[in-house]
Amino acid sequence: MDTVSKLSAYAKENDYEIRVVGVPKTVDNDLMATDHTPGFGSAAKFVATTMKEILRDISVYTLKAVTIVEVMGRDAGWLTASAALPVVSGNIGPDLVYLPERSFDPDEFIASIQKIQEDHPAVLVAVSEGIRFADGRYVGEGLGGRKVDAFGHVALSGAGKVLEDLVKERLGCKVRSIELNLPQRCASHLASLTDITESVGVGSAAVLAATEGKSGVMMTINRNEGDNYSVCYDSADISGIANGVKNVPLDYINKDHNGITEECLNYLAPLIVGEVTPKYENGLPRHIII
Amino acid sequence: MDTVSKLSAYAKENDYEIRVVGVPKTVDNDLMATDHTPGFGSAAKFVATTMKEILRDISVYTLKAVTIVEVMGRDAGWLTASAALPVVSGNIGPDLVYLPERSFDPDEFIASIQKIQEDHPAVLVAVSEGIRFADGRYVGEGLGGRKVDAFGHVALSGAGKVLEDLVKERLGCKVRSIELNLPQRCASHLASLTDITESVGVGSAAVLAATEGKSGVMMTINRNEGDNYSVCYDSADISGIANGVKNVPLDYINKDHNGITEECLNYLAPLIVGEVTPKYENGLPRHIII
Repeated sequence: MDTVSKLSAYAKENDYEIRVVGVPKTVDNDLMATDHTPGFGSAAKFVATTMKEILRDISVYTLKAVTIVEVMGRDAGWLTASAALPVVSGNIGPDLVYLPERSFDPDEFIASIQKIQEDHPAVLVAVSEGIRFADGRYVGEGLGGRKVDAFGHVALSGAGKVLEDLVKERLGCKVRSIELNLPQRCASHLASLTDITESVGVGSAAVLAATEGKSGVMMTINRNEGDNYSVCYDSADISGIANGVKNVPLDYINKDHNGITEECLNYLAPLIVGEVTPKYENGLPRHIII
Repeated sequence: MDTVSKLSAYAKENDYEIRVVGVPKTVDNDLMATDHTPGFGSAAKFVATTMKEILRDISVYTLKAVTIVEVMGRDAGWLTASAALPVVSGNIGPDLVYLPERSFDPDEFIASIQKIQEDHPAVLVAVSEGIRFADGRYVGEGLGGRKVDAFGHVALSGAGKVLEDLVKERLGCKVRSIELNLPQRCASHLASLTDITESVGVGSAAVLAATEGKSGVMMTINRNEGDNYSVCYDSADISGIANGVKNVPLDYINKDHNGITEECLNYLAPLIVGEVTPKYENGLPRHIII
């Protein structure tokens, strides 16, 4: 969007009759001015599906265990919040969800796990890769001890791995960390139909906007009022969008800072609805090869 | 299967009229006497699909980069071999595949990457969690340097992470390791229809076998001769199955020990064929809750 801003300004200054319209796209959902971004709904569907399946896996054991899933999102917790979506329609979801919008307290984390294990042995935690301690340091940088790799370099092992070490040290129970990694942004076999439909819609609207003379704008997806989810497309001036970040609002996070609210679930739920069944060939999804 | 062996022997010795029939089940596909095991085809489909999607993701960049995917299988490389399945039907697959059946040579690994990068910048590698150096040590134990976690404990970070550190040290290019972790055994939304059909088939055959008086056996899935894949079910005496491991045959591994052969692909390919479309509810696969 920064490039859209610069190109459109350059064209205007130099009287080039070229129109530059930005089409948003990021699994992080952190762009200003639009209700949400193309790509996010599909990534959220992958994260929520994977959490639901991991819950099935870990819930068959009777030993105390903690499973920590690290989700993409350095500054904004939208994808991590989506990990809670299995609770919609009465299913169980992760026990604890930590977003980067609130600082992370290791002692409260351990106390929360102990309390949950009074009720059931398998605890599932979702954490954003970008969670930070109260002093601003990333949790992925470690807890003060020096993490050293096989060559003696200080290693950044990620928030999930650091919390795995912490649980092992403080609680001694079985613990595993899982980094969802690249699949959360490329698992196209699990795309959200809502996301794909809107992606086509907002792209088409961008072409129309350009033909109508618009330039220096980003297309937006706006959610209509009402109980049934629907959207319309519009555009917003690129200034003020280009370098901003749209965080998860603090009132979408619960008072203990370890979960999300009903309102947040209501925002997220429609975005993952619907499936795009890929064509399979020899048992694998067919991709277009250019 | 060890329990089947003990229970059936106990019943026989004590003249209990109880029949014990084992039904195989493991994503590792490492049981003797059966062509393959229920669960494996679905896990293999997940691994192959994920590799194909990661390939799409990493191939859009022009900078040199190495992506290392660590796959389950401590002793047997079946699941890791499945990572190569995207090459069936002419698609590209991972550049390098390392199974635990052959020892791992770090120098040859680095040389192979350098050679591949003369052709294309993004190198995709699949490694089994159980690969070992020539001296028998697991690669996941590290390269001789001491890996230390945030609390000063010696850390086992896994084969993928160790190779990530190695590439960073020796080649200096962008490198990422991905551990497929629990999803490879629980991603039921990507189940193989062949696997599910045979699971029902072999379970039914087990009940029939018991009613016919069989005990102390494991059911087997046997592949019929011929060009078109089909199977039949039988049973084999439990002795000799209970504690054995079926490894990937060495002639399924290429002469450079960094890939699999056509024959191995032919063995694997039919097992992932067909999809079981789950029922979705609010955008997520519905699970049976007991």
